[in-house]
Amino acid sequence: MNVDARTMSEYYIIGPPLRSVHGLQLLVTLCRQTGQQCSMDIALVNSLPYDDFVDVFGNVVERCPIIAAAVWSGRPFSSTADLEASIYEFIDALPESGKEGILRVHPDLAGRDLQGGTLTQESREEQGQAGLDTLTAAEVSRMARLNTEYKRHFGFPFVICARMNNKATILQQLEERLGNECTREKMHAIDEVKKICRLRLHALVVQERSNKL
Amino acid sequence: MNVDARTMSEYYIIGPPLRSVHGLQLLVTLCRQTGQQCSMDIALVNSLPYDDFVDVFGNVVERCPIIAAAVWSGRPFSSTADLEASIYEFIDALPESGKEGILRVHPDLAGRDLQGGTLTQESREEQGQAGLDTLTAAEVSRMARLNTEYKRHFGFPFVICARMNNKATILQQLEERLGNECTREKMHAIDEVKKICRLRLHALVVQERSNKL
Repeated sequence: MNVDARTMSEYYIIGPPLRSVHGLQLLVTLCRQTGQQCSMDIALVNSLPYDDFVDVFGNVVERCPIIAAAVWSGRPFSSTADLEASIYEFIDALPESGKEGILRVHPDLAGRDLQGGTLTQESREEQGQAGLDTLTAAEVSRMARLNTEYKRHFGFPFVICARMNNKATILQQLEERLGNECTREKMHAIDEVKKICRLRLHALVVQERSNKL
Repeated sequence: MNVDARTMSEYYIIGPPLRSVHGLQLLVTLCRQTGQQCSMDIALVNSLPYDDFVDVFGNVVERCPIIAAAVWSGRPFSSTADLEASIYEFIDALPESGKEGILRVHPDLAGRDLQGGTLTQESREEQGQAGLDTLTAAEVSRMARLNTEYKRHFGFPFVICARMNNKATILQQLEERLGNECTREKMHAIDEVKKICRLRLHALVVQERSNKL
């Protein structure tokens, strides 16, 4: 069942103190309360004013609400795939420093934000699903050592789509990618950002059958 | 008195739960506790790893940590002015949608985030200093009406450097700028973003006399 206009209007009347809390969090909370699957259709997406659009899609790229805020300029979107393509186009057009900037605002995997409870809700769920919140002390220590080495080497954190991995494949990838040449590794990391973005988008917007990826 | 390396190491040991709380907030809290003026020198700025750099400078452009994270690639900075110029250069190189994105992640003046207590600390202090937290009911109503009109017309919120204004000049500017042509108004708004950024930077980093702006 989609979040329809009526439900969205309920979301609207949650009121000012909650409205600027992260949009996804609001939608997810709403959907859990109502037992609905949290998916809007593209017509509803296209009807959102920019501030609601940013509330809902502001974290499809981690801690980069500017990206959702920018692509709003390109509405209406013909499909979820069109919205997704607009986001990737914006990312690809950034200078190299901007792509590095996207990576640098990502949290460490199994790092201080997970331990300190300061991850975004999306990251917390993704890292939890991959088992990163139940590592043994030895695994935490190995992850921390490899993360530190990776960050020192590349100047950005190791980014991987946690939902498409588990702790074993994450540790394996981290070791393997440490050996990559820097430019290639940056491209690889941005590809992972896009995979994460796709899954976060698909948790929010209905995929049209004809545009299913 | 500046925040020197010793003080920064105290900042470092505040620990994981606080470290990813906004850097400025940490520094401001620290400086209030110690009675120090909250200013780092450029050598200390250049010595920061990217994650601490983003913690400290992540909100010099409101809700755009990607910008601080991107300009870190250009370190070392020769001066505060050099760091500032790097930020402006990044902003100017963004596509038009990216500039609009920067504007769209700004809060409304005297809007729902102020009323709901969800402004960033910097915005709260700036709006408070301009008297926007003590508007009369009539002024709140007038501001809301003009903000709504402005947002509908331009597709981004009214942005002004609140610290360089007061509620009277802000209301006057809001009315005047509503009449601007869209491209010109966007340039004007981005100039205001830069003024805000400059003051936020100067609250964090010592200005060198030779580079004083």
